[in-house]
Amino acid sequence: MRLILNSPLDMHLHLRDGDMLQHVAKFSAKDFTGALIMPNLVPPITDIPSLLAYKERILDVMGCEQFTPYMSLFFKSDYKADFLERSRDYITAIKLYPSGVTTNSDGGVEQFDVKKLAPIFEAMSELNIPLCVHGETNGFVMDREKEFGAVYECLAVAFPKLTIIMEHITTRSSAELLKRYENLYATITLHHLLITLDDVAGGLLNPHLFCKPIAKRYEDRDALLELALNANKKVMFGSDSAPHPVSKKECCGCAAGIFSAPIALSALAELFEKHDKLTNLQAFVSDNARDIYKLTPIEKTVILEKKEWIVPATFGDVVPMFAKQTLKWQALSQK
Amino acid sequence: MRLILNSPLDMHLHLRDGDMLQHVAKFSAKDFTGALIMPNLVPPITDIPSLLAYKERILDVMGCEQFTPYMSLFFKSDYKADFLERSRDYITAIKLYPSGVTTNSDGGVEQFDVKKLAPIFEAMSELNIPLCVHGETNGFVMDREKEFGAVYECLAVAFPKLTIIMEHITTRSSAELLKRYENLYATITLHHLLITLDDVAGGLLNPHLFCKPIAKRYEDRDALLELALNANKKVMFGSDSAPHPVSKKECCGCAAGIFSAPIALSALAELFEKHDKLTNLQAFVSDNARDIYKLTPIEKTVILEKKEWIVPATFGDVVPMFAKQTLKWQALSQK
Repeated sequence: MRLILNSPLDMHLHLRDGDMLQHVAKFSAKDFTGALIMPNLVPPITDIPSLLAYKERILDVMGCEQFTPYMSLFFKSDYKADFLERSRDYITAIKLYPSGVTTNSDGGVEQFDVKKLAPIFEAMSELNIPLCVHGETNGFVMDREKEFGAVYECLAVAFPKLTIIMEHITTRSSAELLKRYENLYATITLHHLLITLDDVAGGLLNPHLFCKPIAKRYEDRDALLELALNANKKVMFGSDSAPHPVSKKECCGCAAGIFSAPIALSALAELFEKHDKLTNLQAFVSDNARDIYKLTPIEKTVILEKKEWIVPATFGDVVPMFAKQTLKWQALSQK
Repeated sequence: MRLILNSPLDMHLHLRDGDMLQHVAKFSAKDFTGALIMPNLVPPITDIPSLLAYKERILDVMGCEQFTPYMSLFFKSDYKADFLERSRDYITAIKLYPSGVTTNSDGGVEQFDVKKLAPIFEAMSELNIPLCVHGETNGFVMDREKEFGAVYECLAVAFPKLTIIMEHITTRSSAELLKRYENLYATITLHHLLITLDDVAGGLLNPHLFCKPIAKRYEDRDALLELALNANKKVMFGSDSAPHPVSKKECCGCAAGIFSAPIALSALAELFEKHDKLTNLQAFVSDNARDIYKLTPIEKTVILEKKEWIVPATFGDVVPMFAKQTLKWQALSQK
């Protein structure tokens, strides 16, 4: 059996830089026609020359694969309207991180003062630049996303023309919030459709499933599944694939992030098939993102074949999700 | 400044066996006059010859330290009244593990059928053998202890003469439950008085603070603190110090357990002092346990000196709690 996907998109991807970029980019390039590239490098991408140079480095490692890196800027509270206007043609979105909530977010927004930030959000609304948000407070780890809901509501009401993407949502409360405001959208990762905190810390502790936001409860996962499997128009796939070398995972202070890029489409096909929703996969991994971001990606056909394969234990020094496990679908790229 | 503790007791301790026993026992022997030794070896301690042999191995490594290993049997659902009667003189308690909930609990109780187990609990009541319980269900990791509350209630009501010790409680609900039934008591660890899930998984993932039951919320920790700092007569100190070699902690499937034995008294003194409750430490680390278990431990005076020291990064191949951090009190043993 074969499944044909037209121009799959990964709307939340960490490609890193340097050697890691060289190593991981090909996995996304093989299975996707494009991805929204996260800007939380060290230092973060906050100006257009840096952004274009990073884009160039990404394209350099793509070889002959057709792949569009949709670039994002790292939100700074001192951005000015004229800067945004000049930047408009180079960027697909601006990504906002509250300071300190995840990997390399230290330069993010310290105080979420909507009134102070209003000129930026207004300019983004006018320029049709979507705002992507890592929506967590600095509160208790299981409550951070829910607590951030008030900020999303405030933004959605105050800036009705702003397209707001709730990145990698993990809770039932986010799933419900999303439905209440027209200008709220969301990405959902593969792993948050599959795992709960039990998979991270319920048995032995599994650092390779440790991510931010942390996986939550079964009822949270089920709420995300309901959105994704039914290809709700407000949600789209964003892997949040975030590679770390094994030395940063199996250690004393394990970094947050799950490397899912090489297995994302295979595992999604298996999940959607299991729930008898394979026909909705196209919308979840491509069509919804095109509508939300108003993108016209390069046509690229990705064929998935129903054929078991064993995921390697590592790709280089990065341990992927489903390492050493068997997946039922195999992605074969085709231009 | 000096603080004198009379015969401190650690009423929940894992000493392991073989090389690890050789390595860790001296830390408990230095600071405590005795400890309740957990029976979850591989295989578990389920008969008196094994128990006595294990006790002998423990005493062998104590050298000239005065230290009483109070022995416990691993609860099996096929124990008979006459076996318990013959065992009475050799044991201080019987420890019940639901199957699969923590390290080496695989031989534990599969189906918690109170009616079927009633003859054992009745015999224990008659013989005044306390029942220590690892009170977790196989449910969601944050709910397991709370869910087990119903079992505690059932036991407390059905066997009013049975002394039931809720081991290493971690939740507000357990703290409240404890107060409602006369025959319910509890041990509290050092780490559950200090950390929450935020310390384990809120920033970087810290495998050295990963334990079962997992650390919970701030309100849970505060409820435990209220009991311990006020030396509530129903609670006593049990470190649940559980050493694993670093290779079993900083790895893919990290084992549950925090090694706190070498720093437990120091850190407790610092905590009680911080809350201006130093005068209650004696009851929490000794007197309450004597009353609950009706023990008369060997007199041993442990002196704590207000003198900063830096906790070693490792003791052998085991990483202790507070590794490389400074503690304010130092324990000097004295017979």
